[in-house]
Amino acid sequence: MNNVNRVVICGIGLMGGSLAKALRPHVKTIVAVDSNDDVLAQVRAAGAADHCYNTIEQANIQRDDLLILAVPVRTIAQTVAALPAVVPGGCMVLDLGSTKLEICQAMDALPPQFEAMGGHPMCGIERSGFAVSFAEMYVKQAFILIPTARTTTRIFQAAEALVAAIGAIAIEVAADRHDQMLGLISHMPHLVSMILMNTAHEWADGDETVWYVSASSFQDMSRLSGSDPRMWRDIFLTNREAVLEHLHYYRAHLDNVIMMLQSAEGETLQAWLGDTQTRHTDYQATKRRFEQGLVHERQVSDES
Amino acid sequence: MNNVNRVVICGIGLMGGSLAKALRPHVKTIVAVDSNDDVLAQVRAAGAADHCYNTIEQANIQRDDLLILAVPVRTIAQTVAALPAVVPGGCMVLDLGSTKLEICQAMDALPPQFEAMGGHPMCGIERSGFAVSFAEMYVKQAFILIPTARTTTRIFQAAEALVAAIGAIAIEVAADRHDQMLGLISHMPHLVSMILMNTAHEWADGDETVWYVSASSFQDMSRLSGSDPRMWRDIFLTNREAVLEHLHYYRAHLDNVIMMLQSAEGETLQAWLGDTQTRHTDYQATKRRFEQGLVHERQVSDES
Repeated sequence: MNNVNRVVICGIGLMGGSLAKALRPHVKTIVAVDSNDDVLAQVRAAGAADHCYNTIEQANIQRDDLLILAVPVRTIAQTVAALPAVVPGGCMVLDLGSTKLEICQAMDALPPQFEAMGGHPMCGIERSGFAVSFAEMYVKQAFILIPTARTTTRIFQAAEALVAAIGAIAIEVAADRHDQMLGLISHMPHLVSMILMNTAHEWADGDETVWYVSASSFQDMSRLSGSDPRMWRDIFLTNREAVLEHLHYYRAHLDNVIMMLQSAEGETLQAWLGDTQTRHTDYQATKRRFEQGLVHERQVSDES
Repeated sequence: MNNVNRVVICGIGLMGGSLAKALRPHVKTIVAVDSNDDVLAQVRAAGAADHCYNTIEQANIQRDDLLILAVPVRTIAQTVAALPAVVPGGCMVLDLGSTKLEICQAMDALPPQFEAMGGHPMCGIERSGFAVSFAEMYVKQAFILIPTARTTTRIFQAAEALVAAIGAIAIEVAADRHDQMLGLISHMPHLVSMILMNTAHEWADGDETVWYVSASSFQDMSRLSGSDPRMWRDIFLTNREAVLEHLHYYRAHLDNVIMMLQSAEGETLQAWLGDTQTRHTDYQATKRRFEQGLVHERQVSDES
């Protein structure tokens, strides 16, 4: 990360905290910004940053600093919009938000002293906060990079260097495609899990035996229904249209399954189950190749 | 297991093999029955049984032997129906099938020299076969016991002793309630996972980037879509009506979510997400209490 002076991480939760810890050996100066003094005290105690501030203003950000926005997704867009007033000289900006269209539009609108790029590391755990953050969280995980109207070669290279430093694998995706894709493989699965939990709760009607006999299938399929309500409200609302479109197709597949079961045709059902199993096997093999670093040709292109 | 002479396990796959290994220290004689000679060779090599036969006839089963049927679910009902011809003197019978109504009806119809009880251990792994079986599989897992018209005090006590010996926790449930319950917490989650996999496959349309960026949410939610097609065809067909009823309610919850997203009302959505999270937390707490053995009063009643 030669082109970068200081790395300023704003929002020291699970993502920002893990990033600070992972970047520690690779950058000269890490600055932590968080409105919560308790969090900053933890950061100091862990030696995860060189300087700690409550606001971006206090960090006195300069043109060659890389500002990383790791606050909740709705706060990121607001923070980006306020940057010209807060950092008049400009700087490099990368964010870690879960939905990208709104944020990247805010980045597009920044004045030219800002070099900005959207980012989305595809990892996380159920728990949140600096206390549970860990340096290894990003290792071998996909880190999506989203070009904006303010993306220069310098910010692109800085982002790529950061992704490499923390052991993640960079993939370039356009903002609208990102949101559709995430709607499919993250936001819809969360809703599917929540719908399952509610359906089971309604039928169980207080009979705890239902929960006693539940095994790993229900355990795993209901896990995401325990996700943080406020965080997921924002994600669903900022990516409403993509999620609705996916749910529309999901519903069509559900109706197809209902019809297959109603007609009780063993052969049709088994053929569908066989196709489904093959699709899952193919998906897993593809994912494994990616994790093993065997798909370099599909990674970030050089143009910016 | 004082009332039992030999334990004869028919079908030495993951379930039957794990049972043989788990019961080994607790019973005098274990007999393995499997049509596949390679499997029996593995059983001999592992020292998991005292005697190995290809058929139930060859095992020469007597009145005080406990026959455990661990073959695929559709084969169990056929085997039970054939028992009076194969074991004319009768015996004790317990099965491990995943759906129970059909099997327990076949048990109801057995002549009185048979003492029979339905069983369903709520555990398993994705892989199958004796090679992956292990003695600890049943530990702290629910083992459902289903009374039939042929359930006596002796078979009930034998089943309870078996469940205790392998470290599982017995729960008594009626056959029809079992199938409805399993439809809810196992069969429906499998279909939900398969529907998700197919919806994602259709949208991805060959773009492997979709699989590269998929993280633990999609990974976990699609896991069950890799399940064995033949085994699950049988489960879905033998429990068709219960599964269809659950899917009907699932669809109503899905439609509710679609409406909530369409109206884009943040407060309603967040309230629903909060309720969902609470339901998941309650479910997990209940399940944990059960695993810790803190719900004795809800377990098997003494009457048979």
